[in-house]
Amino acid sequence: METPISLDPCSRHSLQAQLHEQVRKLILGGQLRPGMRMPTSRALAMQLGVSRNTVLLAYERLGAEGYLQTRGAVGTFVNHDLPDDCLAARRLALVAENGSQHISRHRAIAFEGRAQTIVGDKHPAYDFQLGRLDSHVFPFKAWRRLVTSTLSRAGACLTEYGDPAGLLALRQAIADRLGPTRGINVDPDQIIVITGCQEGFNLTARLLLREGASVAIENPAYQGAAYLYESYRARLAPVAVDDKGLCVDALPDAGAALLYVTPSRQYPMGFTLSLERRLRLLDWARRTDTYIVEDDYDSDFRYRGSPIAALMGLDSHGCVIYLGTFSRSIGPGLRLGYLVVPKHLVGPARQVKALFDNGHAWLEQAALAGFLAHDSYENHLRRIRQCYAERRDCLVDSLRRHFGEVTVSGAEAGMHIAWHLAGELPRATDLQIMAAQYGVGIYPLKSAAAFDFGGCAYSERTIMLGFAALDEQQIRAGVERIAAAVEAAQRTAGRGRASRTERMRPRSPANATFRAAARPVTG
Amino acid sequence: METPISLDPCSRHSLQAQLHEQVRKLILGGQLRPGMRMPTSRALAMQLGVSRNTVLLAYERLGAEGYLQTRGAVGTFVNHDLPDDCLAARRLALVAENGSQHISRHRAIAFEGRAQTIVGDKHPAYDFQLGRLDSHVFPFKAWRRLVTSTLSRAGACLTEYGDPAGLLALRQAIADRLGPTRGINVDPDQIIVITGCQEGFNLTARLLLREGASVAIENPAYQGAAYLYESYRARLAPVAVDDKGLCVDALPDAGAALLYVTPSRQYPMGFTLSLERRLRLLDWARRTDTYIVEDDYDSDFRYRGSPIAALMGLDSHGCVIYLGTFSRSIGPGLRLGYLVVPKHLVGPARQVKALFDNGHAWLEQAALAGFLAHDSYENHLRRIRQCYAERRDCLVDSLRRHFGEVTVSGAEAGMHIAWHLAGELPRATDLQIMAAQYGVGIYPLKSAAAFDFGGCAYSERTIMLGFAALDEQQIRAGVERIAAAVEAAQRTAGRGRASRTERMRPRSPANATFRAAARPVTG
Repeated sequence: METPISLDPCSRHSLQAQLHEQVRKLILGGQLRPGMRMPTSRALAMQLGVSRNTVLLAYERLGAEGYLQTRGAVGTFVNHDLPDDCLAARRLALVAENGSQHISRHRAIAFEGRAQTIVGDKHPAYDFQLGRLDSHVFPFKAWRRLVTSTLSRAGACLTEYGDPAGLLALRQAIADRLGPTRGINVDPDQIIVITGCQEGFNLTARLLLREGASVAIENPAYQGAAYLYESYRARLAPVAVDDKGLCVDALPDAGAALLYVTPSRQYPMGFTLSLERRLRLLDWARRTDTYIVEDDYDSDFRYRGSPIAALMGLDSHGCVIYLGTFSRSIGPGLRLGYLVVPKHLVGPARQVKALFDNGHAWLEQAALAGFLAHDSYENHLRRIRQCYAERRDCLVDSLRRHFGEVTVSGAEAGMHIAWHLAGELPRATDLQIMAAQYGVGIYPLKSAAAFDFGGCAYSERTIMLGFAALDEQQIRAGVERIAAAVEAAQRTAGRGRASRTERMRPRSPANATFRAAARPVTG
Repeated sequence: METPISLDPCSRHSLQAQLHEQVRKLILGGQLRPGMRMPTSRALAMQLGVSRNTVLLAYERLGAEGYLQTRGAVGTFVNHDLPDDCLAARRLALVAENGSQHISRHRAIAFEGRAQTIVGDKHPAYDFQLGRLDSHVFPFKAWRRLVTSTLSRAGACLTEYGDPAGLLALRQAIADRLGPTRGINVDPDQIIVITGCQEGFNLTARLLLREGASVAIENPAYQGAAYLYESYRARLAPVAVDDKGLCVDALPDAGAALLYVTPSRQYPMGFTLSLERRLRLLDWARRTDTYIVEDDYDSDFRYRGSPIAALMGLDSHGCVIYLGTFSRSIGPGLRLGYLVVPKHLVGPARQVKALFDNGHAWLEQAALAGFLAHDSYENHLRRIRQCYAERRDCLVDSLRRHFGEVTVSGAEAGMHIAWHLAGELPRATDLQIMAAQYGVGIYPLKSAAAFDFGGCAYSERTIMLGFAALDEQQIRAGVERIAAAVEAAQRTAGRGRASRTERMRPRSPANATFRAAARPVTG
């Protein structure tokens, strides 16, 4: 018998593996039936032009897997014990594979959610996207030194499970910083090292929410948080935001299972929650038994004024869970952040984290602990704070040069500002389209990783501009191009011609329309 | 009926809010019981001297929150189906309100679960704990070289977000290995890099489970999986295991939202699921629309026979989700594993992973991709496979020397064996106590990170022995001490004296009792 097998010597799979796979398929497909005698290894080797050993090894493996049975000198047979219904199932399977219809019937999955927009790797030439860092400010030298020396002291750390809550040295270093910088006095026990704020949202959801629980959340809110809580089938109750941060008066009287808030720097508007509102917020949380999830994502970058103590630092009732991250200050590629829980939640929070993933990779934790312990982190922060402050100044200056007395918010801190468009400028989404045609990425609320529940005062006429990843020359050029785009659109609307448009041709024909008349460019 | 409600017109809370809160409290306090009819809005408005609208709005909100139920013209009633968290809140609230102490009143947390036992850092002198590696077999030299060179090519990788599903180079390297080693032919798209199997359980739970969904699971099962699915409020349906692995005939006819199974090497018993059962299992999954979660945690360590193709490699209906890990082969300190999903689940699985944590740390992923790409991994595996095989042989030999023809299972693969105690030996839990007194850690089912649903054939007379972390001398000494412990207990029971007991004094007075008579030590 010649078995319908052909081997490809150029395949990246070994001859033995190919042979094994093909015999297996022939058995499952019914071409080789139970009880059939297989060709001898010698005969098959000759047929296929391979060494006898190749066939023997393939037969041996098929034997171990139960497809073939060798009866000493009698020969090798297709196993009798492959029940018919299995084979029928397999034949059906093969039919399905080869059939023209691919109707695959699957139980509906339970997950109903959407993933937040994360910063992608395709960027326009001048991209003011939020959340991006400048790779040149990464402390490469110090980090490489730390990683190398940490690794040389690894001992059993790579081959054993660590504390799921995180490396004690790192939690201690974080606790040591939280007192002086954020007014939060905690034990390392209360700290759980996480992959970033996103994992923190998850931990709080698993800790606090059941299906249908209510989650009060800022409007607009950070998309990653909104989508996450939504995916746990929570009922989101949006609470408005104004220039003093969350509108505490608009909080639901009944409280909620959880309130998500960004007090240091409202995301994405950049407002700081006033102290008076902080106190009233804490009072509300206490009265209504609501846990507050305080996302302090950007607290390391404050350029003007002194930092306001974190909500958790003001709280004496154990209502606040605090989230911090090193994604902004060092880099998101480390995937390191931390959750701080009130004492009575330490046990459950540790359990949730252990159930989640048994803890974080050791090397990054150990290196970061070293980085925090030796002032390297504070020095690094000072350096990049200076750098980002200059970029922010450059951005605001450039906007003023081209658009007059612009109104911005969130310039005291952080890595982006919100530009409130004056009445004569196009609407935010129109401006975004115009700018894109000039190679500039700018972001209205909806595309700024923000979730707009509707009815938000900043949906239409606010543009977000991240400045951390661009140098001053790029910032100036980018703003100049936005101005050129506006001018071009205005001329098109007025059927005129713009000298600036000549100099900087749009990438594609400008077909944007906008409702508000464009204001003549002044610069 | 006059409801005991009084509103304060001078309060800073609206009349409506006060009414809402008081009715809620009366319900939670039990004064208004489920099923009770509420006064009509007109009657209550008259009683309280407020507008009917105030009452209507408060009722409406209480209805939306699930406290009240309006049945058209029939009337408004206290809801029969008050959710659990209300009742839990009520209990807590009552304790807090009535307690004289400073019991801080907090909303009950939603999380109800327990965390798996992870390998701790306190070990007896001779510890046969499962899941431990020998830190000496970690490929330090190669890893340090890779980490250093990877870091020097970091570019923007540390300062930008990567693909939440994982580094493409790593996913490609994993996909390239899965074909030849496990018979799984997939695109890198189908692979999601995870923190380890534990995160994989979470992803599958988020993907497939809603509260009350049924999860079929091996009995005994890996504790981390059992506790995880339980924490999502799934109904666990244990399915017995015998020496051919999962008893496929015992699977629920109705299927399940998910079946968790360890086919290569049943955890913790070490049985390999036979091919015939694999095919029938897949047929069951297809018929019942059940997703199979195949945990292949130990597949890299097979000492005898050739590997059986993974379930996912045999599946042509997209029913199988596959989990692999590098915690066994390299080290749990890396926190790296992978999930492989059928094509139709790629989108949702990526979304779930993004919502989880935006992906894994870059450095470990990039270093591991390099390790996999250059045969370093295969060489490493060959080296440690040899080492572990020798340790396993040493363990089985030592057991035979001291206990005669012992019965073990799971010796063909993996890093631990199951020792089935002969009738004359003590019960597993008694033996554990005896051995502990001689400085030896051995593990009955319940303390072997396994979940025993009860009624399991291996609960009483099986001991798990992990051998990967001990060298041959330690293994021999450990087994000798177990034998000495048994002998001592027997002599104590027989009021005799043991020479061996003299030589190796127990750490604490032996006070263990056991039901089966100890068998004289032969070695």
